[in-house]
Amino acid sequence: MREVAVIGAGCTTFGEKWDTSFRNLFVEAGALALEDAGVSGEQIDAMYVGNMSAGRFIEQEHIGALIADYAGLASHHVPATRVEAACASGGLSFRQAVIAVASGLEDIVVAAGVEKMTDVGTGASVDALAGAADREWEGFAGATFPGLYAMIAQDYMHRYPLTREQLGLVAVKNHYNGARNPIAQFQQEISLDTVLKSSLVADPLRLFDCSPITDGAAAVVVAPLERAREFTDAPVRVLASAQASDTITLHDRRDISTLDATVAAGRRAFRMAGLSTSDIDMVEVHDCFTIAEICAIEDLGFCRKGEAGRFTEEGITALNGDLPVNTSGGLKACGHPVGATGIKQVYEITKQLRGEAGRRQISGAEIGMTHNVGGTGATVAVHILGV
Amino acid sequence: MREVAVIGAGCTTFGEKWDTSFRNLFVEAGALALEDAGVSGEQIDAMYVGNMSAGRFIEQEHIGALIADYAGLASHHVPATRVEAACASGGLSFRQAVIAVASGLEDIVVAAGVEKMTDVGTGASVDALAGAADREWEGFAGATFPGLYAMIAQDYMHRYPLTREQLGLVAVKNHYNGARNPIAQFQQEISLDTVLKSSLVADPLRLFDCSPITDGAAAVVVAPLERAREFTDAPVRVLASAQASDTITLHDRRDISTLDATVAAGRRAFRMAGLSTSDIDMVEVHDCFTIAEICAIEDLGFCRKGEAGRFTEEGITALNGDLPVNTSGGLKACGHPVGATGIKQVYEITKQLRGEAGRRQISGAEIGMTHNVGGTGATVAVHILGV
Repeated sequence: MREVAVIGAGCTTFGEKWDTSFRNLFVEAGALALEDAGVSGEQIDAMYVGNMSAGRFIEQEHIGALIADYAGLASHHVPATRVEAACASGGLSFRQAVIAVASGLEDIVVAAGVEKMTDVGTGASVDALAGAADREWEGFAGATFPGLYAMIAQDYMHRYPLTREQLGLVAVKNHYNGARNPIAQFQQEISLDTVLKSSLVADPLRLFDCSPITDGAAAVVVAPLERAREFTDAPVRVLASAQASDTITLHDRRDISTLDATVAAGRRAFRMAGLSTSDIDMVEVHDCFTIAEICAIEDLGFCRKGEAGRFTEEGITALNGDLPVNTSGGLKACGHPVGATGIKQVYEITKQLRGEAGRRQISGAEIGMTHNVGGTGATVAVHILGV
Repeated sequence: MREVAVIGAGCTTFGEKWDTSFRNLFVEAGALALEDAGVSGEQIDAMYVGNMSAGRFIEQEHIGALIADYAGLASHHVPATRVEAACASGGLSFRQAVIAVASGLEDIVVAAGVEKMTDVGTGASVDALAGAADREWEGFAGATFPGLYAMIAQDYMHRYPLTREQLGLVAVKNHYNGARNPIAQFQQEISLDTVLKSSLVADPLRLFDCSPITDGAAAVVVAPLERAREFTDAPVRVLASAQASDTITLHDRRDISTLDATVAAGRRAFRMAGLSTSDIDMVEVHDCFTIAEICAIEDLGFCRKGEAGRFTEEGITALNGDLPVNTSGGLKACGHPVGATGIKQVYEITKQLRGEAGRRQISGAEIGMTHNVGGTGATVAVHILGV
């Protein structure tokens, strides 16, 4: 296989973007990525786009062709493929682009992710998102995602030493980081008190434990490493691309507070890269809820099971800690346009590795990781990037 | 890139399958394919599944993980990825599996397609299918797929010598073939009179010019050619995999009765395989409507523009003709579970090349082609397979 590099990255601002459309969001992110890469549309060999549920959110399928068309690439008939794995759609889109370049079939490939979630009401949005779980065994029984992750949190807190305050500190940290990210949906710091006094959503999760409904798009351009310097002085190498599945329902799991697909994808990624946790300078994990970040840090191997609460409280995952987690603000503060999140994680690591992360820059960052989850962990994509 | 071969194929019967579910359809096709390949679940390295609109048809997304789980493959955390490009979802699923094996990243990969369309009413089904066109510029204006293809037919018949009778003979031929296919939804022959006297749907298209609403699933197993003989004495080589996009709307096209994405994908496939039209022993084309088969034969280069009506009338595309088209019965008679169709085409060519096509067998078949279309031609996948 050929080695692959990220040669450009672009991202819209994330938020409730009433003034724009699904297709315009994609075009904006795509144009930013191409400009960043110094690549023209004619040079693009293929496109992948991660999108969870445009069918439900905007009654539109056939997303690959739509975005190729609106990006102006229909005239040279660029292959364009939508990839879907619920909230891991972006991570899988990136992975398919990496595989296409690694295979030698394509050279310059765009991997994008996009979701427009606010064109339907909150109820319809929550119901669309429930399509990431098992509709027959979870959705029809009334389980929504806050409820499912609350069960994980209940189980976790019953078995391991995690305090309500430690859980809240995940959100406090991610808002701190988001306040330093110009694309973030919530660019303000919050106090622990804000989390603890926010509305109860599904015990023990409160409003500020939950990632928001978000519109947004992100895109990156990948190329063979051997050609990367034609386009950029700062190529970011793809050191590993790993993916794993698990049962779609929580009740079929061996253990609901360990995400086995995260464990498997993490191990595969470290093995592929020939690296270990100590090599990682920073990681973007899938904090759709605060408890998800707690589990992710442990399941990826950065600390032992039951230690992530203390880890967080001690500031190890903070911007100035030993293992900065979610420097972008994560899903919690940067926002979570579900199909775009996996690509935004790659965008964030790319910015960090190129030293372009402004007030949230990790100094001397050389290796970063992304961790993107679909549903309650039925799909996980892990990537390791390095300079 | 490594050469890739199909080592097994399975398909459910197609039809209105009230007695089974989306997930069971997939499991049945997957089990048939694995049994055919002599591969156990533990040997599977990755899965791809083509599905257009489970979000609309059964309120379920996250299809890759769902099928991996119900296929019993969650326990070893097999990567499973859904691919969507409307009615070309199956063709793109096959293509992604081929790329994954060609890259060297994976060895034994399942490419599947599945759609359960009858769990909603016909109106909801037609509206879901309209998501394959541009919802903002076509769907919201009232255009459904019969209407869009009727416009293609009107334009075509205005410019080229195609009679209403010739158009009807496409359906007659495909029903003749479907009557010889044990998985086909409609296993009965029809007369030209049946087509011409059937209800008018969208002038000039009548009921028997249209493919039906169908439930079904298909799966194939691909592997590196160098390993294929571990599993089968009759590997089917993937000689070319090509994909092309076009504008999503008809009104943005240069010419609405030539599908430029078919032209582009066809040329790319022939170039990749180093073959020409005269090398093809049979082709499965995307006859969602009879006019689509007419256009496809021409746009792939099997005859000049305007000749496909005569070509059909002269029996050249018949089972005993020089270029058998849609030996399976095509979408018209075999049925069209949209996400599964592209894989069923590969299944049919595999059966033909292995000499297992029973009463519809093309004697001495060595090279076959598949042509799978999304929407009105905004995505096209073309594959060439050979022994």
